[in-house]
Amino acid sequence: MDDISDLLELDAAGEPLSGRIVQIFQVACRLFAQRGFDGVSMRDIALECGISKATLYHYFPDKDSILRPLAIGTTKSLCLHVSRHDRPDAPPLERLRSFLTETANFFEKFRWAWIAASTVFWSDPKTRARKERIEWRDRYEQLLRDILQAGMDAGELRPMDVKLAGHFVLGSINWMPRWYRPEGALSAAGIADRFCDMIIEGIRAEPPASTPPRRR
Amino acid sequence: MDDISDLLELDAAGEPLSGRIVQIFQVACRLFAQRGFDGVSMRDIALECGISKATLYHYFPDKDSILRPLAIGTTKSLCLHVSRHDRPDAPPLERLRSFLTETANFFEKFRWAWIAASTVFWSDPKTRARKERIEWRDRYEQLLRDILQAGMDAGELRPMDVKLAGHFVLGSINWMPRWYRPEGALSAAGIADRFCDMIIEGIRAEPPASTPPRRR
Repeated sequence: MDDISDLLELDAAGEPLSGRIVQIFQVACRLFAQRGFDGVSMRDIALECGISKATLYHYFPDKDSILRPLAIGTTKSLCLHVSRHDRPDAPPLERLRSFLTETANFFEKFRWAWIAASTVFWSDPKTRARKERIEWRDRYEQLLRDILQAGMDAGELRPMDVKLAGHFVLGSINWMPRWYRPEGALSAAGIADRFCDMIIEGIRAEPPASTPPRRR
Repeated sequence: MDDISDLLELDAAGEPLSGRIVQIFQVACRLFAQRGFDGVSMRDIALECGISKATLYHYFPDKDSILRPLAIGTTKSLCLHVSRHDRPDAPPLERLRSFLTETANFFEKFRWAWIAASTVFWSDPKTRARKERIEWRDRYEQLLRDILQAGMDAGELRPMDVKLAGHFVLGSINWMPRWYRPEGALSAAGIADRFCDMIIEGIRAEPPASTPPRRR
């Protein structure tokens, strides 16, 4: 079981979440992810939790109040998780691989929350909550840009527009939620590892052995 | 102005769409893209079109009936657009570049429709419509896989899992709608072109001139 309280306790002002609240979050984010925010009613959530609508409303006044902490918590926790695994003194290409595989590990652990959170990223009407979320997303993306810049400074990566390269790298991994199936042959981190190879080395074939070396 | 009727006439059984209907589609898909499907009411759409709610309901019974043709039309037209530009007898790496830049051209031309359509891809409750859309998306993705397979068969691309490589390539381009700004320095196709370089050659720096050649 994904311990979804890991995503949420950060905003709970020190108090552990009750089992009931954790259950509601868990059920709601799976339903949001599978049917879209639009396709889920408070009634659906109560039904799936095996509680009455009145009980659900006792904890949450509406769907927004369930989704918002999930969305902010997911973005913030992803940033903290990846930063915790980053070793600024390691070689930049190792740091890039860690950034990608740890993003994938986080995604795999909190897949429903991730998908639920990302479907509403653009349509959250509460601007303040959205602003806080964008700040965490920006910190996460800045870490990637710092790693790419360090790689260029060290001469290990080509000179590139660091923002553009960052979007390129993130695209490969951020597209995963749309097609990844947990029952597949590779774990999410295993896929991220292959993607990292493609990102670093490209997909062009090595020149065949019969090709003369570039310099004599 | 994006001629949104290009996306829709395909399903209009030969009859050209009236100017009013085109206007409603255009306004609705911009609003859906900017605020999410959830964040837009029939009232908002009527207001923005400068028509009464009664007039809007004369054409469309609900938001779903506006969104669905947009979503199917976008996916179908993308597939047809990219296929039309594909030249199966061209070198595979050229075909890959055309696939990416033509996807980007299509995205830039129909940006609001694309974003509106992709936000609802997962939450469309009408399975039949969804099924038709998935068939068009699958044809589009199959074209990319065919190109990658042709590249491997010709020895121009490394031996790879073609599905995984396809997801990798699509990620870079499918992530664009989340960050692309039309007022930026590069056109969407210009960005896709740079991405194609990174995909083919990787981001690792060339070995410095002082490095001895691999073979003597």
